[in-house]
Amino acid sequence: MPDTLQITDCTILPEAGAPLISPGFLEITDNTIRTLGPMEQRPAPGTATVIKAPGQLLMPGLINSHNHCAMTLFRGLADDLDLMTWLNRHIFPAEAASVNPEMVYWCTRLAAAEMLLAGTTTVADGYFHADSAARACRDAGIRAVAAQGVIDFPAPGVPDPSRNIEMLERFIDFWLGQDPLVTPAVFAHSPYTCSPATLLRAKETADRHRLRFFIHLAEARGEAGMLIDARGTSPVKHLQTLGLLDAAAVCVHSIWLDDADLDILAATGAQVVSCPQSNLKLASGTARVSAMLDRGIRVGLGTDGCASNNSLDMFREMDMLAKIQKLKDHDATSLPARQALACATTDGARLLGLPQTGRLVAGGLADMVLIDLQAPHLTPFYNQDLLVYAARGSDVRTVIVDGRIVVRDRKVLAFDLEETLAAVERLAAGLRAA
Amino acid sequence: MPDTLQITDCTILPEAGAPLISPGFLEITDNTIRTLGPMEQRPAPGTATVIKAPGQLLMPGLINSHNHCAMTLFRGLADDLDLMTWLNRHIFPAEAASVNPEMVYWCTRLAAAEMLLAGTTTVADGYFHADSAARACRDAGIRAVAAQGVIDFPAPGVPDPSRNIEMLERFIDFWLGQDPLVTPAVFAHSPYTCSPATLLRAKETADRHRLRFFIHLAEARGEAGMLIDARGTSPVKHLQTLGLLDAAAVCVHSIWLDDADLDILAATGAQVVSCPQSNLKLASGTARVSAMLDRGIRVGLGTDGCASNNSLDMFREMDMLAKIQKLKDHDATSLPARQALACATTDGARLLGLPQTGRLVAGGLADMVLIDLQAPHLTPFYNQDLLVYAARGSDVRTVIVDGRIVVRDRKVLAFDLEETLAAVERLAAGLRAA
Repeated sequence: MPDTLQITDCTILPEAGAPLISPGFLEITDNTIRTLGPMEQRPAPGTATVIKAPGQLLMPGLINSHNHCAMTLFRGLADDLDLMTWLNRHIFPAEAASVNPEMVYWCTRLAAAEMLLAGTTTVADGYFHADSAARACRDAGIRAVAAQGVIDFPAPGVPDPSRNIEMLERFIDFWLGQDPLVTPAVFAHSPYTCSPATLLRAKETADRHRLRFFIHLAEARGEAGMLIDARGTSPVKHLQTLGLLDAAAVCVHSIWLDDADLDILAATGAQVVSCPQSNLKLASGTARVSAMLDRGIRVGLGTDGCASNNSLDMFREMDMLAKIQKLKDHDATSLPARQALACATTDGARLLGLPQTGRLVAGGLADMVLIDLQAPHLTPFYNQDLLVYAARGSDVRTVIVDGRIVVRDRKVLAFDLEETLAAVERLAAGLRAA
Repeated sequence: MPDTLQITDCTILPEAGAPLISPGFLEITDNTIRTLGPMEQRPAPGTATVIKAPGQLLMPGLINSHNHCAMTLFRGLADDLDLMTWLNRHIFPAEAASVNPEMVYWCTRLAAAEMLLAGTTTVADGYFHADSAARACRDAGIRAVAAQGVIDFPAPGVPDPSRNIEMLERFIDFWLGQDPLVTPAVFAHSPYTCSPATLLRAKETADRHRLRFFIHLAEARGEAGMLIDARGTSPVKHLQTLGLLDAAAVCVHSIWLDDADLDILAATGAQVVSCPQSNLKLASGTARVSAMLDRGIRVGLGTDGCASNNSLDMFREMDMLAKIQKLKDHDATSLPARQALACATTDGARLLGLPQTGRLVAGGLADMVLIDLQAPHLTPFYNQDLLVYAARGSDVRTVIVDGRIVVRDRKVLAFDLEETLAAVERLAAGLRAA
């Protein structure tokens, strides 16, 4: 007999921009949304578990489309520095001193706790020791697109770059179909750290398994001059020439694009993840998100690693996305709140190849969060825009991933949070002492 | 016998940028900080009330230097609109339908609850019916610089603009020395809604009572062309020519300033309040805060009314101030976290003429907050920068204003929050029905 859960007496936002249902109910069987609607249509609960949630809003869990989860260890280690000083004097030495499979496991679990408590139910991760990250996400109960990194330099876990594609194949072979929460993927670091040959092999591997191909693209203004074997062209044109841009390609950051670059992305169906807070904190710039959306380019939202943010709260990220684009466009009507919500839910889900998530629909996967509306900063609640402009991750009370209650009344149920905090504190003490 | 309170076993940030004391103690007698330091120097508690706060950080309460508190009623009523549509089609009609002394009282109390729960202990308010706002702040237990507005148009509470200075005098006469929490002040709306004669009379009134003189200045790009009786000059030069700029003048927003304007502000000692989130949401622009600080101009931080924000969380505002200035300056070292903390504490306090607040020092007023550091998003806690880049208002557990515990374990003790929420919901229902 299947497990059934009913959430009742709440306000429901089925999808970014859709009308609210209030009061409403939603019923889950195992990991799937069975039905939802106004309270008067609620089926008899029978043996179902019932969560009564008056004064709360039920919405799709948020999709963090770009993170380097394990960098929680470096959160606030060094702030307010130019990119090269930050990387060379602080982050790279700290990584050299601390990155190993155990560190990636515990620090990814910390990130998972932070994200779940702030309403994120899916994360796209890319870091070293992707196998440890994938295990940490699975154990923490968060849905993950776990990407193995590919780079033409020695890296933790892949000391011999000539074996990077072989290691990638091994990672994919293990995780493909291994766990309902984990989808493997490929992360080619960038066109200035991967040769065309490596990029082509990485993409071919992703395509062969029908997986997403991520790449950092055009984060820095001068990136065109840094490309390997393609000087004088733009990063986007470089990828296009290599034939890497298609609907399975996800370009992260993508700040320094001209109109021709945008047209190429639109024509190829390539997708973009914007990380506005990281881009501000590192003074990288502001992506042309309105111009992308005008061309029909799908845009997801990501926090980036929290060392350059320093938070994994997607509510704050949505607020920043909507506000910063108004400044860029000199137009207060740009990137309305509902578009920011869509980037962080429906669009993020499709971008990651998980269209069964990101909205609440019968037959979809049961990834959702309950928000407590009974708070001064959410009063009055005229409409869903407040979820972007006033809500915070801390307003999330209950989180369900794949039909399982992983957070309830702001307590992590899925795993032992104290154990994770203690493990990361031990690693941080080692860094402080170094 | 005086009331004594000891807070012990916590980490203490005495002032933005100062070294942390850990573990530390702080002792309050009545409304004054008596002493603080490392735990080993703690005096015997005697009959003192003791709050043990291990795992928590004690810091100065935040100073919100610009708000129109009662606009909580319009939070999220209309978003993502250009300024004139927003004002003329939504905010002005809603104000016409709803602003009265009772509305200002309850909606200011809601703002006070939101601010206290998010660690703000002082607010500079300016709105209609300032007397109701001042009473609401006093009753809510928040420290307030309550400014009576002056404008050359009929306004709620001052239907006859020819009596605006008389009403101002009456407001000041009542509140001067009336309550330790409330300091009256003058808010001349702007140089495009007040004639030079009105501005001069308002400033003369403020000066005679040694009070702060606030004015919205250079929020919009085209403001020079809108000035009353001063076409062709800049808003800053206009005020300088009138002799209004001095150390008691507080210029709010001040976005569209050239170098000469900045030099004038620096030379006169005039101060600036920046409201980065409101400026982004309304696409007004980004103030040249780094350039102001380079010239020694004191800068405070404000949320503005929450209808253009839509939150009164000063932690989010600090984060935005620090990040947006890096974008403006194309420099990741611009406006470091500690400067943002200073704008929201020590500098804000001095700007408002309340130098006994904004830091924790023996002899200072006892306005402070305890932050819970035992959370995934604040782990690891390497240094105080995390208060800007990762902390949220919801991390505040305990709030003390003027020696009185007004929030404890995230519950408002100072007044009946449910009554306030219900009163504002009734007013919002009226607006929804209109």
